[in-house]
Amino acid sequence: MNEHVYKQIELTGSSKTSIEDAVQSAITKASKTLHDLRWFQIVESRGYIEDGKVDYWQVTIKLGFRLDE
Amino acid sequence: MNEHVYKQIELTGSSKTSIEDAVQSAITKASKTLHDLRWFQIVESRGYIEDGKVDYWQVTIKLGFRLDE
Amino acid sequence: MNEHVYKQIELTGSSKTSIEDAVQSAITKASKTLHDLRWFQIVESRGYIEDGKVDYWQVTIKLGFRLDE
Amino acid sequence: MNEHVYKQIELTGSSKTSIEDAVQSAITKASKTLHDLRWFQIVESRGYIEDGKVDYWQVTIKLGFRLDE
Amino acid sequence: MNEHVYKQIELTGSSKTSIEDAVQSAITKASKTLHDLRWFQIVESRGYIEDGKVDYWQVTIKLGFRLDE
Amino acid sequence: MNEHVYKQIELTGSSKTSIEDAVQSAITKASKTLHDLRWFQIVESRGYIEDGKVDYWQVTIKLGFRLDE
Amino acid sequence: MNEHVYKQIELTGSSKTSIEDAVQSAITKASKTLHDLRWFQIVESRGYIEDGKVDYWQVTIKLGFRLDE
Amino acid sequence: MNEHVYKQIELTGSSKTSIEDAVQSAITKASKTLHDLRWFQIVESRGYIEDGKVDYWQVTIKLGFRLDE
Amino acid sequence: MNEHVYKQIELTGSSKTSIEDAVQSAITKASKTLHDLRWFQIVESRGYIEDGKVDYWQVTIKLGFRLDE
Amino acid sequence: MNEHVYKQIELTGSSKTSIEDAVQSAITKASKTLHDLRWFQIVESRGYIEDGKVDYWQVTIKLGFRLDE
Amino acid sequence: MNEHVYKQIELTGSSKTSIEDAVQSAITKASKTLHDLRWFQIVESRGYIEDGKVDYWQVTIKLGFRLDE
Amino acid sequence: MNEHVYKQIELTGSSKTSIEDAVQSAITKASKTLHDLRWFQIVESRGYIEDGKVDYWQVTIKLGFRLDE
Repeated sequence: MNEHVYKQIELTGSSKTSIEDAVQSAITKASKTLHDLRWFQIVESRGYIEDGKVDYWQVTIKLGFRLDE
Repeated sequence: MNEHVYKQIELTGSSKTSIEDAVQSAITKASKTLHDLRWFQIVESRGYIEDGKVDYWQVTIKLGFRLDE
Repeated sequence: MNEHVYKQIELTGSSKTSIEDAVQSAITKASKTLHDLRWFQIVESRGYIEDGKVDYWQVTIKLGFRLDE
Repeated sequence: MNEHVYKQIELTGSSKTSIEDAVQSAITKASKTLHDLRWFQIVESRGYIEDGKVDYWQVTIKLGFRLDE
Repeated sequence: MNEHVYKQIELTGSSKTSIEDAVQSAITKASKTLHDLRWFQIVESRGYIEDGKVDYWQVTIKLGFRLDE
Repeated sequence: MNEHVYKQIELTGSSKTSIEDAVQSAITKASKTLHDLRWFQIVESRGYIEDGKVDYWQVTIKLGFRLDE
Repeated sequence: MNEHVYKQIELTGSSKTSIEDAVQSAITKASKTLHDLRWFQIVESRGYIEDGKVDYWQVTIKLGFRLDE
Repeated sequence: MNEHVYKQIELTGSSKTSIEDAVQSAITKASKTLHDLRWFQIVESRGYIEDGKVDYWQVTIKLGFRLDE
Repeated sequence: MNEHVYKQIELTGSSKTSIEDAVQSAITKASKTLHDLRWFQIVESRGYIEDGKVDYWQVTIKLGFRLDE
Repeated sequence: MNEHVYKQIELTGSSKTSIEDAVQSAITKASKTLHDLRWFQIVESRGYIEDGKVDYWQVTIKLGFRLDE
Repeated sequence: MNEHVYKQIELTGSSKTSIEDAVQSAITKASKTLHDLRWFQIVESRGYIEDGKVDYWQVTIKLGFRLDE
Repeated sequence: MNEHVYKQIELTGSSKTSIEDAVQSAITKASKTLHDLRWFQIVESRGYIEDGKVDYWQVTIKLGFRLDE
């Protein structure tokens, strides 16, 4: 791992069901254009409310990936 | 959204099952007296332990709602 | 509760399935050598990615327990 | 000032023109139901964008007021 | 404790004598209108000076109480 | 809003006249290459001084935009 | 710029009209006794309220200047 | 002091009377098993309330001690 | 208060007896060379330990005073 | 400097020898695709251990560069 | 890495020569009693001064290691 | 150490070679006018880049010294 340079970007994903699912939605999106995704860290967990219920979760992550050689 | 004033309050909900459920319990309680609940942000996730198991999750949220016109 | 002294330690647990499960894995480990575990607070939620999917969740908690009399 | 107890609440105001105006909009709203408003502190300055222009500023303040004797 | 929802509010109390007394002054005030006060956390400790002496202590606390069933 | 993934980037704009104008300068620049800019948050407000006067304001924002479908 | 040592001090200026003007009032004051003022960073933006209106803005800055050779 | 390695641990002590006494209670407990205790830093000051009075103070400290040679 | 510019400096005072007394010791020292001291804020509360007892408290404050006209 | 807009990105570089060298490794990588790199700020300094020795340093920087006209 | 539980502790090492060397001194000490040391993060870098020169560097790290199976 | 009052100031030093050297440059400068310099803490480590190389390191420290009796 020590020969590489990594970049971190910040994404926000959302889900009707859970924090975990919102994280996965952001990663799924990112993996379409970036390879070598390695790790993430949750930066903020928010959500929106409709009629007294959580309508969807909105989770912001810092996402790290290896820069190409 | 831009014509309104919003207020944020801080509530702590709890649940035997998950972080998401603890958040919902706080929102359910708040929605009995406040309408126009719009969004929340998780401020702190804690929990209490019984016999080496998470007994219940206790999650503090900042909860935003529109002030009446 | 007020007659006691508590110690907090920092542990990181992991899980293939959820944040809640990663927390429980750290508590399960700690409860083998420490008794009187009382509460925890989530300090950081991270994860590792394999092939565009969250491979496992890695959650760091501060864990409080009562020191023996 | 030292004989009193103060309460702080968190409000978000908005304005098409400036940060200062968004702060004033929150204070104007609060002053309809609260008297003895004394001071505020800006907690967060955000805004929303339409067609590459700031559409409105949205500023969150902590607002302090004296509790009635 | 796990069946309830708690609310936290932020108050500032003051005292000529000590930080502890300033905290108590805020709690005394709050307990006139709120019951089920449970805990507090000191958020900020300030003070004002007259002639090179601390004139009064001004302590801001986050104060938690149980919402009525 | 809940079906999308958002990305946040950090930009610094500057202006001779005001904080608001420095924010707009960063957004104007970003809108030349990015569409679907949605919101921003001020991260840092600095400035440079010439002859005892603010020469220009330099404001750093976190800027959120929707990733293409 | 790299041969010098800089000192930062913290000042609070105020203004009836704007955040920018409060910053300038602090810098104007400082420039009477300090030369080589270079940059500032806003640390805190507060204000005081009279009759439901912002009476004056009070802005704290960190102010950097070059120490004499 | 510079030849040694220090360890910091986090303890929470409590007292019916004051913040200072709660700190001392944690140090007294620690000094039964650790020697070479050197310094502490207050991390959090909380308390619990009974009938509108502070029932006990609960103060968390980081406590530093020299590791044995 | 709004016509003036204030400066904040950071001092550390100490005391064998209490946090409040350590704060006062720093203010007493400062008041020998500075007039118009107005307010302070506690930034850090530490202490040193001798033989399992708090030997002295060491409290760092930010201290605000009005700059001369 | 005041006519431009800057972007900041977050990179992590590593080195067997020093923090400074890990920073340089990230900058070297970035300079292959970005020109007008101007400044950086260290965000986090970590490292990995093999057999009781620091195996490599891993330093995360925020890296600022001017956007093209 | 995902089957294990990790513990983090906080140590302070020192050195006459560099930050890196102070970190290594803390790790060297820890490795005498702990195995499976994996990573560290620098938490604070301080130092002490003698006659206008840095006398020694004192660096606090969070140090992670795998708990035994 | 406990009979004295200390002041902390914030300085920024720079160096072509290392973080340690930038810290020393700030201390060297300060020691020309202040005696009884005791300790420092690194607050921020930045640097400037020329042609893809770190041109100089710029490190901000908080510097503590004893006030004269």
